[in-house]
Amino acid sequence: MKHLISTLFISACMVSAAGASELRDTALEYFKPLPSTIPSVKDNPITPEKIVLGKALFFDPRLSASGVFSCYSCHNLATGGDDNLETSIGHGWQKGPRNSPTVLNAVLNEAQFWDGRAEDLKAQAKGPIQAGVEMANTPETVVATLMSMPQYTEWFSAAFAEDAKPVSFDNMAKAIEAFEATLITPSPFDAFLNGDDDAMTPEAEKGLALFVDKGCVACHSGVNLGGQGYYPFGLIEKPGAEILPPDDKGRFAVTETVDDEYVFRASPLRNVAVTAPYFHSGKVWDLKVAVQVMAESQLGEALSDEEADLIVAFMDSLTGSVPEVTVPVLPAETRTTPRPTAEILR
Amino acid sequence: MKHLISTLFISACMVSAAGASELRDTALEYFKPLPSTIPSVKDNPITPEKIVLGKALFFDPRLSASGVFSCYSCHNLATGGDDNLETSIGHGWQKGPRNSPTVLNAVLNEAQFWDGRAEDLKAQAKGPIQAGVEMANTPETVVATLMSMPQYTEWFSAAFAEDAKPVSFDNMAKAIEAFEATLITPSPFDAFLNGDDDAMTPEAEKGLALFVDKGCVACHSGVNLGGQGYYPFGLIEKPGAEILPPDDKGRFAVTETVDDEYVFRASPLRNVAVTAPYFHSGKVWDLKVAVQVMAESQLGEALSDEEADLIVAFMDSLTGSVPEVTVPVLPAETRTTPRPTAEILR
Repeated sequence: MKHLISTLFISACMVSAAGASELRDTALEYFKPLPSTIPSVKDNPITPEKIVLGKALFFDPRLSASGVFSCYSCHNLATGGDDNLETSIGHGWQKGPRNSPTVLNAVLNEAQFWDGRAEDLKAQAKGPIQAGVEMANTPETVVATLMSMPQYTEWFSAAFAEDAKPVSFDNMAKAIEAFEATLITPSPFDAFLNGDDDAMTPEAEKGLALFVDKGCVACHSGVNLGGQGYYPFGLIEKPGAEILPPDDKGRFAVTETVDDEYVFRASPLRNVAVTAPYFHSGKVWDLKVAVQVMAESQLGEALSDEEADLIVAFMDSLTGSVPEVTVPVLPAETRTTPRPTAEILR
Repeated sequence: MKHLISTLFISACMVSAAGASELRDTALEYFKPLPSTIPSVKDNPITPEKIVLGKALFFDPRLSASGVFSCYSCHNLATGGDDNLETSIGHGWQKGPRNSPTVLNAVLNEAQFWDGRAEDLKAQAKGPIQAGVEMANTPETVVATLMSMPQYTEWFSAAFAEDAKPVSFDNMAKAIEAFEATLITPSPFDAFLNGDDDAMTPEAEKGLALFVDKGCVACHSGVNLGGQGYYPFGLIEKPGAEILPPDDKGRFAVTETVDDEYVFRASPLRNVAVTAPYFHSGKVWDLKVAVQVMAESQLGEALSDEEADLIVAFMDSLTGSVPEVTVPVLPAETRTTPRPTAEILR
């Protein structure tokens, strides 16, 4: 009897292993596990010196005009790399137009922002610092701020030794990109793709199979399960104005092509379970509801309650380990550091 | 010749060592080095579980109504434990009434806030969370927020195992106090007090001697060089209204005693060189100017330029090593987590 049970058990495991292996083969047609090393980026060799500098800059609220906001404010590493708000609140308590995307694994997206208007993180980093509703600063003031603190000029000289003028707005952005490139979060899904049959729960595996079968992979594929292409929000059926406000036409603002009206970058889905609320409008807080909205608007499909739960279980398996980041000790202001201003000038 | 030089050198060192030793003896009449272990606090035994929970709470912006501000926002561990603003900016972009004091070593102050209205850090922690111009939240919403995330209820149960209701506003404050008690920053001055003759620069030593001789120690003494008593700002000569705004009467608001008009807690001076701007009004950015203002207003003494520089050199020796703090990974919101609101309700 014992022998029979263990034979049955072994057979069941073999079936399950075979199932996992087949599912893995299918998944690897669409997805890629995270790399085990820091990804390289265009025109910006990543060095330890740049990472040290970039981390300091990422945490430094003095990059904002008010001295209140840093990159970290809206890309909080304690809360999934975003800010858990519908849309970010910035300078003068102004609300930004779109939901803050996570900085985690963002280096692996093809382009940055919901409309892909920045080709990479070094281009992206310059945006919020200058946006009137976010950090409301200017490149000149940022450079003056950094130049006023000897520790920063040393860090810049170490990171950009070959440059005649190491402290610059461009180099600031490159250093931030270098730090952000380290924010890679391997998840149970990666372990599964890498060959660990026990990494995901059975529900998550079923959800993965559904995610593929239903066609979600048409837009959410690649290493970040999204972040690689642009698609109309409401391909089959436009969601309501609450979720898709009519005045934000998405990528149309970048390309000025009618075809790009209400076109947005497919959200990268890593850590999606910890980065509510959802969509560019940030109007949906519940991941299951977001999954259902997507199925209806993009695929014309009403998911059953069980199907939606399984897909959510799959998405839970995309929550990764955030690398340990220690809070940097930033240099103190000096007499020449521009003073913060809370005024709304533009 | 060589022998003579080394004899002279040794004598010089002996004189210097004797000088240092005498200065140390004098200093130890007024000051105490930081303890080498986490200080105990009243009615709140500090445990590793409380520290873990308290760190999470300290970094969690969901303790604020808007989801924008955490304790960390105004007590930034990257910038000396304060926010480098004249007065903090909070909910609705409102400006707080007073400069944010550093959280570093604050556990060693006799009482908290500029007017000492909170007797300890657990009492203090409840203030900004509820202040309309700061985090603008209510105890009820905070508890509902914490109860909505299973990880938090686990952390609270581990930290307050003996309590029937572990998740409470009071226990939140106790956990924050426990984490904050770990933020102790030993400095070259401590090394000097502990017997290291080479810890401070000769200028810092001269500054220390001046600090004692001029009478600064009358208010700035003890382990935190201040933070232990209340004194009128402008004891000898009131500074201008720019520095001492007439509508903020300091401790008078707490005691309602006329004697306490314009009375404030003597600032604790640890890390003062990295926590500009200065005074409760935050109106002075330059430490040397702040030292001169103090000498004139409290001691009726005009310091020479050199004297002020030496005292600043001494203050530089009070900049300590901030303990390494890794950014916590906070639990994600759930369906029952109260949603953030940016509205100004009061």
